[in-house]
Amino acid sequence: MDIKKRLIIDMDGVLADIYEQLIKLEFEETGTKINRKETLGKTEIEAFPNCLKHVRQKGFFRNAPVMPSAINVLKKLNEYYEVFIVSSATEYPNSLEEKYYWIEEYFPFISWKQLVLCGTKTVVKGDIMIDDHFKNLDFFDGKTILFTQPHNYEKNENSHERMNGWDEISTFLL
Amino acid sequence: MDIKKRLIIDMDGVLADIYEQLIKLEFEETGTKINRKETLGKTEIEAFPNCLKHVRQKGFFRNAPVMPSAINVLKKLNEYYEVFIVSSATEYPNSLEEKYYWIEEYFPFISWKQLVLCGTKTVVKGDIMIDDHFKNLDFFDGKTILFTQPHNYEKNENSHERMNGWDEISTFLL
Repeated sequence: MDIKKRLIIDMDGVLADIYEQLIKLEFEETGTKINRKETLGKTEIEAFPNCLKHVRQKGFFRNAPVMPSAINVLKKLNEYYEVFIVSSATEYPNSLEEKYYWIEEYFPFISWKQLVLCGTKTVVKGDIMIDDHFKNLDFFDGKTILFTQPHNYEKNENSHERMNGWDEISTFLL
Repeated sequence: MDIKKRLIIDMDGVLADIYEQLIKLEFEETGTKINRKETLGKTEIEAFPNCLKHVRQKGFFRNAPVMPSAINVLKKLNEYYEVFIVSSATEYPNSLEEKYYWIEEYFPFISWKQLVLCGTKTVVKGDIMIDDHFKNLDFFDGKTILFTQPHNYEKNENSHERMNGWDEISTFLL
């Protein structure tokens, strides 16, 4: 029997579509509809004037939309890999419970044993990491997959495999 | 400059005195004062009839007493080691925020970056682990310290260094 490879998967910007959530909240607050194209190459804070306010408000993570195809692909990956969802969350204590219930709602096949809420990801070990941030991928020992998001658009990713969405990941890992 | 060794420290039964909290709640509920000696060799569930009810109730973790000498010793350890507090918490989602604020109150020198709330500890890597459970220590790659608690009393610990409290750890690690 083969031992399953351990797959470390990020939440914000990988499973949860944070830019869509920020576009919606910015529109509700200011009436300005920021186009996704305008955010290319910008961090969330640079792209959304009220980013920090919105991220800190109750419900931000609980009501975030799911990234397209994430549910079906993760369901499959969960059969063939030892999956852990590892999320930087302790900076925003109100996000902890919200992230738990968000996973429970959209990914009910992921158990509480597979969830890790932390501050820095240097402390986790695994075989493959999927993340949208270099600061996480650069310190990981195993194979690294950079999940395309506006803030990492066109940035150099020589050392990481770039994937544009969950369908590409499905083809690559399954 | 030496790179600091990474020290992984458990919360329940190591930093937080869970047996004391259960003795108090059992007494408040039933009027029966369970003696710590009666709990030797028993898990919390075996020793306390209302354990599961109490663990699940709001405030259980937030109001748990701190283990003797834990604050002063951890403050010192935090200077000489790269400390991470790693707690099994995702089984009880209400514990997530409680554990965050408990650490913030009693260990304000520990930042949110040093906190990891997870389901299983097989996913963390480090040099030294302090824990009261074999299920965590047995799967750790580095040096392992078994923190004496009633449930692990007199159990075989050939492969782990047994420590009876924070003062012993201080002498051993500092």
